[in-house]
Amino acid sequence: MSDFLIDEELLAAIDMGSNSFHLAIARVDHGEVKKVASMSEKVQLAAGLDENKNLTEAAQQRGLACLARFVGRLSAVQPNRLRIVATNALRQAKNGHEFIQKAAEILPKPIEIIAGREEARLIYLGVSHTMENSGRRLVIDIGGGSTELIIGEEFEPIHTESLQMGCVAYTKAFFAEGEINHKSFDKAVFAARKELSTIANTYKNAGWDTVVGSSGTIKACRQITVNMGWSNAQENLTREGLEKLKDKLLKYKHVSEMDFDGLKEDRRAVLPAGIAILYAVFDILDIDKLVYSDGALREGVMYDLLGRFQHEDIRDRSVQALMGRYNADPKQAERVVKTAQHLFEGVAAELKLTSDDSDLLRRAAYLHEIGLAISHGGYHRHGAYLLQHSDIPGFSQIDQNHLSHLVAHHRRKLRQDDKIDVNKVGGHKLMHLCLLLRLAVLVNHSRSDQMLPAIELSVQNAQQWQLSVSGDAKQWPLLVAELHDEQVQFKNWDIELKIHSEQFVD
Amino acid sequence: MSDFLIDEELLAAIDMGSNSFHLAIARVDHGEVKKVASMSEKVQLAAGLDENKNLTEAAQQRGLACLARFVGRLSAVQPNRLRIVATNALRQAKNGHEFIQKAAEILPKPIEIIAGREEARLIYLGVSHTMENSGRRLVIDIGGGSTELIIGEEFEPIHTESLQMGCVAYTKAFFAEGEINHKSFDKAVFAARKELSTIANTYKNAGWDTVVGSSGTIKACRQITVNMGWSNAQENLTREGLEKLKDKLLKYKHVSEMDFDGLKEDRRAVLPAGIAILYAVFDILDIDKLVYSDGALREGVMYDLLGRFQHEDIRDRSVQALMGRYNADPKQAERVVKTAQHLFEGVAAELKLTSDDSDLLRRAAYLHEIGLAISHGGYHRHGAYLLQHSDIPGFSQIDQNHLSHLVAHHRRKLRQDDKIDVNKVGGHKLMHLCLLLRLAVLVNHSRSDQMLPAIELSVQNAQQWQLSVSGDAKQWPLLVAELHDEQVQFKNWDIELKIHSEQFVD
Repeated sequence: MSDFLIDEELLAAIDMGSNSFHLAIARVDHGEVKKVASMSEKVQLAAGLDENKNLTEAAQQRGLACLARFVGRLSAVQPNRLRIVATNALRQAKNGHEFIQKAAEILPKPIEIIAGREEARLIYLGVSHTMENSGRRLVIDIGGGSTELIIGEEFEPIHTESLQMGCVAYTKAFFAEGEINHKSFDKAVFAARKELSTIANTYKNAGWDTVVGSSGTIKACRQITVNMGWSNAQENLTREGLEKLKDKLLKYKHVSEMDFDGLKEDRRAVLPAGIAILYAVFDILDIDKLVYSDGALREGVMYDLLGRFQHEDIRDRSVQALMGRYNADPKQAERVVKTAQHLFEGVAAELKLTSDDSDLLRRAAYLHEIGLAISHGGYHRHGAYLLQHSDIPGFSQIDQNHLSHLVAHHRRKLRQDDKIDVNKVGGHKLMHLCLLLRLAVLVNHSRSDQMLPAIELSVQNAQQWQLSVSGDAKQWPLLVAELHDEQVQFKNWDIELKIHSEQFVD
Repeated sequence: MSDFLIDEELLAAIDMGSNSFHLAIARVDHGEVKKVASMSEKVQLAAGLDENKNLTEAAQQRGLACLARFVGRLSAVQPNRLRIVATNALRQAKNGHEFIQKAAEILPKPIEIIAGREEARLIYLGVSHTMENSGRRLVIDIGGGSTELIIGEEFEPIHTESLQMGCVAYTKAFFAEGEINHKSFDKAVFAARKELSTIANTYKNAGWDTVVGSSGTIKACRQITVNMGWSNAQENLTREGLEKLKDKLLKYKHVSEMDFDGLKEDRRAVLPAGIAILYAVFDILDIDKLVYSDGALREGVMYDLLGRFQHEDIRDRSVQALMGRYNADPKQAERVVKTAQHLFEGVAAELKLTSDDSDLLRRAAYLHEIGLAISHGGYHRHGAYLLQHSDIPGFSQIDQNHLSHLVAHHRRKLRQDDKIDVNKVGGHKLMHLCLLLRLAVLVNHSRSDQMLPAIELSVQNAQQWQLSVSGDAKQWPLLVAELHDEQVQFKNWDIELKIHSEQFVD
């Protein structure tokens, strides 16, 4: 693809849902995301999870073929203005990594698996940017594998939840043969009520003014009830309409018999499960009606991406929030950030590091001490645990995995095993960022602005680094000893660290 | 031991230090702990750690023989008014569990391994209760395996640190053959400076008015410098005195030659390492002089124990602090605590549960949701991680291990493996507390005060429990289904849970 074809104004999002994959391409127009093209395919990834939670070969092929078709539409989009997010089916799949590797060969950007709460946040972001502001909102998104429920005001989500229930998963569990009967339907509703019961009181106490629904299940239910004339409110899905839809559904014996005006063929198999889940949601949360919003997650992904370009990166806000919760020393964090950025600049070109890598290093530097809130002993491991497992708005699972590895290896011994591990997660780049963070932390061991020597890092090649240290510092002998130790650690990762200084020539 | 010999006023503490074991017995007199008897033995447990960090058989035998002698002095002390704490040598020992099991056969109470920060807190507590208040204090305790440094005011520690350096460990590392020379001494000082460098600026910025030292190394150094007339300040250890002590030390070639007025034989071998550490502390922290305080840790353990009897249990404050940090829902916590206590009362006598068990269950109930701050998915595991690894004032490692296991198993499946694991950590009692917590959490799933049915738990025997449920509740069908599921989980732990209710007769 040649450069002149690329349109600087375009943004794109691929949403690899458990039921369907969607592509959306949009132009940025006065700070708003205006969709210019979209594509959807019913890949049914979740239906392709076998009993051991592995994606079958057939499901993987369906997914890859769909992604290949999407890529054909992306030639005018800059790769850094595209995000590809995967949700519950890939969160669940034990062999998801394998699928992601295959997909990497055809995609211009890696797939990011996002956590349930992050999915909920992005859905809310999409809804809040595309619908008029109408007080406090409850947003419901019933997907193939999970259902997200969010309460928010204006652009801020207040409660975000992701429950393990979706139309594909529930079809497998309760309507596998396509038969429809009261018993199966009641079982599905009961299971959904059980999932909902843990959040019901919290949500009802928080309250809302309006309800918004998104995704295929709700779209189909609304369309049918409106087409059938079962809805007294124009274009809205009402409780009355949903009751009528349920009653009508239960008159059929099999999904093949269903005759609903407006039902698309690819929705047919998963409709009974979807209705059961929606019915439980209306019931448990006492909902009268909802309005439908189109493409919430894709819109949210694109608005989030737009924010990153406009210096309103939610990830930086999340980093500050984590530092606050775990009471990390902001002065020390700033010192390490500053040194890390200085070291980074010295080697970025040679090591082919990008601005994304710089962002990652900066965030890891801010967060490297959060584990101290748990305990001093092994705090790098505690920090890594928190970064691996926390719901952190704006970060995908791979982002968090990278951050976690950087923090895990910012001090103490580096073993050859660690190198293999870090390489597997983020390649040579992540290894190099680990080493930059280590040096930045080491140089700032005195936790003081005054005692810093002037340092310059350069690399001859990826295996030979040189650190030049100059200036006068009280703590010199300690720094020299620690750099000595550090040379040994670098060696364990097959990198020679030369140290050049007036007192210490290597 | 017959009851009438027990003196209700007595408290006792055993401090199993890395160098010496100490026993202190005290009477409570107008809210103060007045020592009435003490014993010390140089067990040198840390010296008995082999290269794989296992305690040698000989070291274990020395420890057990000493504990047996201590037990001979404890006949008048109620077991619940005794605490036995172990510090760095047992923190480090890989086979510590083995030693603790052997010791359990002769001791009236289990040994509790305490974390470095908890040790620091207790040392400060001892110092602050036994010395007059003199503004902000720096307390230094150089032990056999670790050195604690604490800054505090009145009874409150502000900074607590435990560093991996001690006179026994440093003797092994730098003076193993008993030879004394400049090179070994400088190496030891250098290693200590390196440990200290990470906290030096934080401590110096916090500042202090007076310095207090405790434990054998500081006691010996002060005694020698005072006896030799090297100290210009009455009874204090000064920098000048320490310099003279160091200079004199370095004139000897071997520890066997040292001729210091007031040096006890059992201090001889570890004195050079102790002086090196103390020298580094004086140097890095710019200390001019310190006063000596006797028995800081033992005093602290006894004051802590006294607090527990006087409803000033630091552990309850720690529980509240953890709930605050992790933003746990206090209303839900109170509901679960209330239900758990009610269930506990129904079965305590039959299951031989004590008031300590009740405290443990209450604290686990308060803390069971703290993992939600990390993420919703698997939050019981996150909570367990936090409770296992955090520095929590007032709790020993075994306390934390018990809390962690309770929180880890408060929801989701119970496997046979989990039963074995829980049993190993805390026996049948811990298993039973787990099950009580599960029921309390389950009954409160609706997160509401209104929908609670009335419940009564009773046990026929440890393998047969009966839960009676009565009253009218909207969420009934869900609760019934969940209790059904719970019966399966109890079964996995070999307990039959019968459920008796109007709607649901088992």
